[in-house]
Amino acid sequence: MIAPDIQELVKYLSKLPGLGPRSGRRAALHLMKKPKEVMRPLMVALERVLENIKSCTICGNLDTTSPCTLCQDPKRDETLLCVVAEVADLWALERAPIFRGRYHVLGGILSALEGQGPEDLRIGSLVKRVQNSQTQEVILGLSATVEGQTTAHYIVSQLKPYNVKVTRLSHGVPVGGELDYMDEGTLETALLGRRHHG
Amino acid sequence: MIAPDIQELVKYLSKLPGLGPRSGRRAALHLMKKPKEVMRPLMVALERVLENIKSCTICGNLDTTSPCTLCQDPKRDETLLCVVAEVADLWALERAPIFRGRYHVLGGILSALEGQGPEDLRIGSLVKRVQNSQTQEVILGLSATVEGQTTAHYIVSQLKPYNVKVTRLSHGVPVGGELDYMDEGTLETALLGRRHHG
Repeated sequence: MIAPDIQELVKYLSKLPGLGPRSGRRAALHLMKKPKEVMRPLMVALERVLENIKSCTICGNLDTTSPCTLCQDPKRDETLLCVVAEVADLWALERAPIFRGRYHVLGGILSALEGQGPEDLRIGSLVKRVQNSQTQEVILGLSATVEGQTTAHYIVSQLKPYNVKVTRLSHGVPVGGELDYMDEGTLETALLGRRHHG
Repeated sequence: MIAPDIQELVKYLSKLPGLGPRSGRRAALHLMKKPKEVMRPLMVALERVLENIKSCTICGNLDTTSPCTLCQDPKRDETLLCVVAEVADLWALERAPIFRGRYHVLGGILSALEGQGPEDLRIGSLVKRVQNSQTQEVILGLSATVEGQTTAHYIVSQLKPYNVKVTRLSHGVPVGGELDYMDEGTLETALLGRRHHG
């Protein structure tokens, strides 16, 4: 009895992370009740991002320019390179205003379960980047999960031939915890307490 | 360091009911990672609804036609009229496939706290509708909260001059509960056990 167009909207909203059928319906009604004040601005924002979204060719960050704002920033330390699994992790680290180096986003993590191997991640481009840049230290900003640490070990083995220091975040990150869930204080502690990998 | 366009999108997503800053960021990244598969379909759905959304001139339902699909349906019982506060409540009752009458959406509830008086709700049009239609019974489908019951009492007083039976949902709805949160079984029980108001 609900119009198909509205059902379609509810369906797509329900699929957003954190939403389900019920919250999808609430979100749809919330938007529909204020088409000009709420729905239109959201659409304009979506349109702008969709038109301008770019995956940075250097680091894999999502931004409206490529190279991204972070890669273009001359104030960021060229000698420090932080490897993260996802853009969400980069955003999380940026919220802790302690790290002023560069990033490299892998676009995932090694996972036998999800059939994600090294060729599916941006590891080759990381190795090339380390070879050709002024990078002196690679910080592995990976989750303290089995898969995160497997990925860390794999990267360490790939970087072994090159004269670069590899560190990982200290154990301020609780074991089993996902990086994206940490608070700024924990991230700061983890960055300051980083240790030599191996 | 996050592009202003992306920050804007996160801001609007965070304002959706059920989402906050963190889930807003996750939703934005989820959309940005799959622009064609996830973001574009959501935008198309939003556009279609925004273009076609109408508030039904008869019952106040939100639909893509006015009069809405429910008001146009000749199979719905003209003698039964269910009054609800919000479109979400209408949707909730429609999920319990027991009620086959008509609806009237008030567009809110009497609330001294929010300064919402009778003139802010579609009560005048309800009274006119009862006068001019074949309505024999008005079912008050309002939440079992103080404000819901205050609204119910007010509507009963307004309908007193007219020869119409006024009932309310039975106490299958737990006291203090919001209608929109009820499961189908509770709503069915409440509809079947409805009692004379007063």
